[in-house]
Amino acid sequence: MTGVREMTIGVLGGTGAQGRGLAVRWAQAGLRVVIGSRSAERAQQAAAEITETVGGEVSGLDNSGCAAEADIVLAALPWDAHEETLRSLSEELKNKIVVDCVNPLGFDKKGPYALQVPEGSAAQQAEQLLPESRVTAAFHHVSSVTLADPAVTHVDLDVLVLGDDREATDVVRELADVVPGVRGIYGGRLRNAHQVEALTANVIAINRRYKAHAGIRVTDV
Amino acid sequence: MTGVREMTIGVLGGTGAQGRGLAVRWAQAGLRVVIGSRSAERAQQAAAEITETVGGEVSGLDNSGCAAEADIVLAALPWDAHEETLRSLSEELKNKIVVDCVNPLGFDKKGPYALQVPEGSAAQQAEQLLPESRVTAAFHHVSSVTLADPAVTHVDLDVLVLGDDREATDVVRELADVVPGVRGIYGGRLRNAHQVEALTANVIAINRRYKAHAGIRVTDV
Repeated sequence: MTGVREMTIGVLGGTGAQGRGLAVRWAQAGLRVVIGSRSAERAQQAAAEITETVGGEVSGLDNSGCAAEADIVLAALPWDAHEETLRSLSEELKNKIVVDCVNPLGFDKKGPYALQVPEGSAAQQAEQLLPESRVTAAFHHVSSVTLADPAVTHVDLDVLVLGDDREATDVVRELADVVPGVRGIYGGRLRNAHQVEALTANVIAINRRYKAHAGIRVTDV
Repeated sequence: MTGVREMTIGVLGGTGAQGRGLAVRWAQAGLRVVIGSRSAERAQQAAAEITETVGGEVSGLDNSGCAAEADIVLAALPWDAHEETLRSLSEELKNKIVVDCVNPLGFDKKGPYALQVPEGSAAQQAEQLLPESRVTAAFHHVSSVTLADPAVTHVDLDVLVLGDDREATDVVRELADVVPGVRGIYGGRLRNAHQVEALTANVIAINRRYKAHAGIRVTDV
């Protein structure tokens, strides 16, 4: 399998904060990126803004064009669009590595909490919707504020990469490693994705208490 | 509220690896510790062994005596004894801070996975069983191997402390802070305990892949 530097990285939902932040960092690292959005026009606009800021090779397409064009696809979709969007892209995503970074969270006056997902997690829902794709889960705890801040040249974060396909998780770890400061760490099988997604509620609670943009590091690795 | 240095720390299930490892570190830090076990005799034996190794003021009692004697109580029980033991101690634990560190996990040939808990999490089960106690959750990801190793003088770990009672979580954070290297970090409300407990499955998967005794650090805090 070729490395991420020879691949085109698609970002479904790339006009949202999380997807866009990662697209910026990948473009900066010299990877070829395609932003996907429901609207091709907004995707192209985001791509142009990213190129203007950090350079690199970034284009914009609608989600279907993005999925078709890319070799590896980050699903950075809002949770309420997750199921429908992935279901509609199963053909385009066939045989490709899909990286799910979606955190199904609810918010009420007590703050954030994890939503129950019938399939177990967003990543397992993706796996059921895309049986012919190679589904992994990663990039849950990235702070979009930190990623978008050009003054942060070293992102202090370990990215847990989950999945049952060793080759796929190795490629996704490489996708984390290209961002200066970030390490991709294997974090378990896909059936253990729920708690990694849900932990984002705790990260948000930490951010609120400590006025921080918290990330997670794994020690002794 | 007085600080942990004026309190007696009870460790229910203190003859198990996780409870004993923490008891060792607290004794070493000069805290007064009572080991609890189903058998008072085994508790006394563990207490004697700890005192012999690291000194300090450590005694052993049965779980009920331990709960009655202590000001703050760590529930380091095996998951399958969690419900029954806590139910039987609701009187002794009244008005006390209870720290639940239990990780409800299953293991099969694919490795560790999180068990479903009807109450949401072990900590929430404790909260339901002990309505007159101040239930918190913490110390889920400590490596008992690391804690038990006297050569490790600096434990590279952040302890996420969860709970809805600010004063109680502050005391438990202090209980983490007394171990050199460890920081107690507020990690959210008790309803967000499940994912912190379940994340131990990922930590175990990481340990297996990397031959490590992994811990978690929170960045930007």
